[in-house]
Amino acid sequence: MRVLASEITGYKNKRVELAGWVHRIRSLGKISFVILRDRSGTAQLVLDEKPEFTHESVISVQGIVKENEKAPDGVELQVDGESLKVLSAANPELPIPVNQDPKELSLDAVLDNRIISLRIPRIRQIFTLQSAILKYFAQHMRSEGFTEIKTSKLIGTGTEGGTGLFPVEYFDTRVYLAQSPQFYKQALVASGMERVFEIGPAYRAEKHDTPRHLNEYVSLDVEMAFIESEHDLIDLEQRILKSIFQGVKEDCAKELEAWQASVPEPEEVDSVPRITHDEAKEIIGKLQGRRVFEINPEGERVICDWAKKEHGVDAVFVTGFPRKKRPFYTFPSGNKTMSFDLLFRGLEITTGGRRINDYGMLLETLPRFGLTEEGLSDYCQIFKYGCPPHGGFAIGLERLTQQILGLSNVKEASLFPRDRKRVRP
Amino acid sequence: MRVLASEITGYKNKRVELAGWVHRIRSLGKISFVILRDRSGTAQLVLDEKPEFTHESVISVQGIVKENEKAPDGVELQVDGESLKVLSAANPELPIPVNQDPKELSLDAVLDNRIISLRIPRIRQIFTLQSAILKYFAQHMRSEGFTEIKTSKLIGTGTEGGTGLFPVEYFDTRVYLAQSPQFYKQALVASGMERVFEIGPAYRAEKHDTPRHLNEYVSLDVEMAFIESEHDLIDLEQRILKSIFQGVKEDCAKELEAWQASVPEPEEVDSVPRITHDEAKEIIGKLQGRRVFEINPEGERVICDWAKKEHGVDAVFVTGFPRKKRPFYTFPSGNKTMSFDLLFRGLEITTGGRRINDYGMLLETLPRFGLTEEGLSDYCQIFKYGCPPHGGFAIGLERLTQQILGLSNVKEASLFPRDRKRVRP
Repeated sequence: MRVLASEITGYKNKRVELAGWVHRIRSLGKISFVILRDRSGTAQLVLDEKPEFTHESVISVQGIVKENEKAPDGVELQVDGESLKVLSAANPELPIPVNQDPKELSLDAVLDNRIISLRIPRIRQIFTLQSAILKYFAQHMRSEGFTEIKTSKLIGTGTEGGTGLFPVEYFDTRVYLAQSPQFYKQALVASGMERVFEIGPAYRAEKHDTPRHLNEYVSLDVEMAFIESEHDLIDLEQRILKSIFQGVKEDCAKELEAWQASVPEPEEVDSVPRITHDEAKEIIGKLQGRRVFEINPEGERVICDWAKKEHGVDAVFVTGFPRKKRPFYTFPSGNKTMSFDLLFRGLEITTGGRRINDYGMLLETLPRFGLTEEGLSDYCQIFKYGCPPHGGFAIGLERLTQQILGLSNVKEASLFPRDRKRVRP
Repeated sequence: MRVLASEITGYKNKRVELAGWVHRIRSLGKISFVILRDRSGTAQLVLDEKPEFTHESVISVQGIVKENEKAPDGVELQVDGESLKVLSAANPELPIPVNQDPKELSLDAVLDNRIISLRIPRIRQIFTLQSAILKYFAQHMRSEGFTEIKTSKLIGTGTEGGTGLFPVEYFDTRVYLAQSPQFYKQALVASGMERVFEIGPAYRAEKHDTPRHLNEYVSLDVEMAFIESEHDLIDLEQRILKSIFQGVKEDCAKELEAWQASVPEPEEVDSVPRITHDEAKEIIGKLQGRRVFEINPEGERVICDWAKKEHGVDAVFVTGFPRKKRPFYTFPSGNKTMSFDLLFRGLEITTGGRRINDYGMLLETLPRFGLTEEGLSDYCQIFKYGCPPHGGFAIGLERLTQQILGLSNVKEASLFPRDRKRVRP
């Protein structure tokens, strides 16, 4: 019966089987030490002979677990040579080293060799943590009565206006990859589901090449009925983030340690300030010593630093964006809107807001954005037949992962990132 | 403070607020009875006046909860007329009725008017149950140490051979929508994750128009290392299905009742027979009184009926498919393969098997399927550097939903189905 590398400390002086990848080989005369890697971690094997297998080969071995204070976890496996099986031999010419610190590798080397670089423990840990984010996000949403939805990623036209879409040849017609499930999540809220969430891919055909953009990303989408303003949504996001952060802290201590990272404590999440777009510009302007017209990436970092200093937390909810800076469906409040962004450790990770739910208000708004009811007839139907006040937001999964671990590029937080030039592996 | 319709039995003689959609209006002289619908169900309101709102309008009301044995749940809300607010007025001309039995509606009427048909409680319940499937699937996978992955849906070429793909215009190049995460889940197993699962969209550019096909569906994908044969995978799928069925039974009693449906008990799942493809053809042949060359949809129903009679469960695992009936990456066993299908209540809902993990065996196999290493270079790299024995399978979310509820067409189990002619809403 196979046990995991992390479990052998519980089997002292017992015979166990281990299986995994050959992480490191060190031969000292007649004895060899092999570090074996499996999904749980690594274990030291002691062999009485010089191994004939290569790094990254997959082997299984049996032996007795012995205490040895010099071994990594205080135990090692004394391998019974007869039991050794090479399940899959690796070509000795690895394109990149697996058992060295990935900091030595360029981002291109990591991504061009993604199939191999994901074997590097520290890189794989990014995705162990990402899996925990997915778990705690869904778990929290269900705890508040949200229904998980899966909507089509093939759409006739974009609700966001039509630019920045990837066209798809769909039989004899042309459709587009959805930029967000905006239309669908609003329709489902109005259908009586009231509270929905979706975890799914989103596509932006933008020619960005920055450390914060992906052309395909995973969006954690939320939409909720019977809200008054964006503050109900911010309250909800704070509860969600507290659940995610606490869950990650519990499940991923090893991953956080490997990246020397930490998650905000619940009281820190509660103390994230809510400031208006105007206030934010003023604060940034004062700190930068010049007038600020727009909150650019540098401004996002400045305002988070300010929050860290003034409120003890490296994050800010920015509210009250002007109408022209938000999509047409955003609920107006004078010449501002009931919308918000969350900036976390210097990067926008969420955009959301209350939506227009009144059919008349929507019809009045469309022409201001150069849109027509005919062009958005499916969308407009949602509001024609009774739609409660509602709103929602989306959290970018890769950006949240990036900011928790302090990754320098969001592409590092995507298993198989897509950018303008990268479509493989 | 708003309470839900399903909660008012706990507030007898107390004042509460309800909010939701006007499901039904019945006026008797000076008194009117209104059925209000929210995400939890419905509640009866009693008004002292003739309502001025229309069906499907969204309203909020306050009043005292009173016992009335004639009311649907033995309680009703005596509405304080002053408190009534119409939050969103619905156009009285509904394209389809919401408060009638959807059996009267054709499938086209339901899908053409999807935005409205999802308001019909019995239709919405399909997706409440689907959300529970998603919950228990993920929960089970995590309980066995699987990592949740999110892989790209934009691929350079298909691992399945290249036909049946939707092309995407991706900047200056052309990519395709992924038919499955096959390549990626194998790569991640080989990376050392060992056990992965993914919930994501999958695309098939096939011109089918049948009650069992969708061009876009949600695939519940599983891949696991260190297996011996397809039987390890079948064991795993049985454990997963038991978790899903038990979870659905607990969470969705109301939904199952509305559809007069039930889920198999754990002992039934355990007793699903495993028969070879040859045996299945023989059994179908005997029952149909003619020689059978292929298991077609009618054959799938016949063999499930047989299992019901012989094994007390309406499902069969078919194993040992011939090599030419399975994809190139399937692990051979003589001129058969270590692969399986699960037929559930007369429909194939899973395909899986052990995969080739030996680089040499793969290179030998490719030409038999008209493929080359150059054409599949990213894929082949997985096996060059050590890949454990592994395998996996995929469950179609919509088909599983369809078969649990006994829906006559799989499109009913997709929120926004895509078929050859349907790309909206």
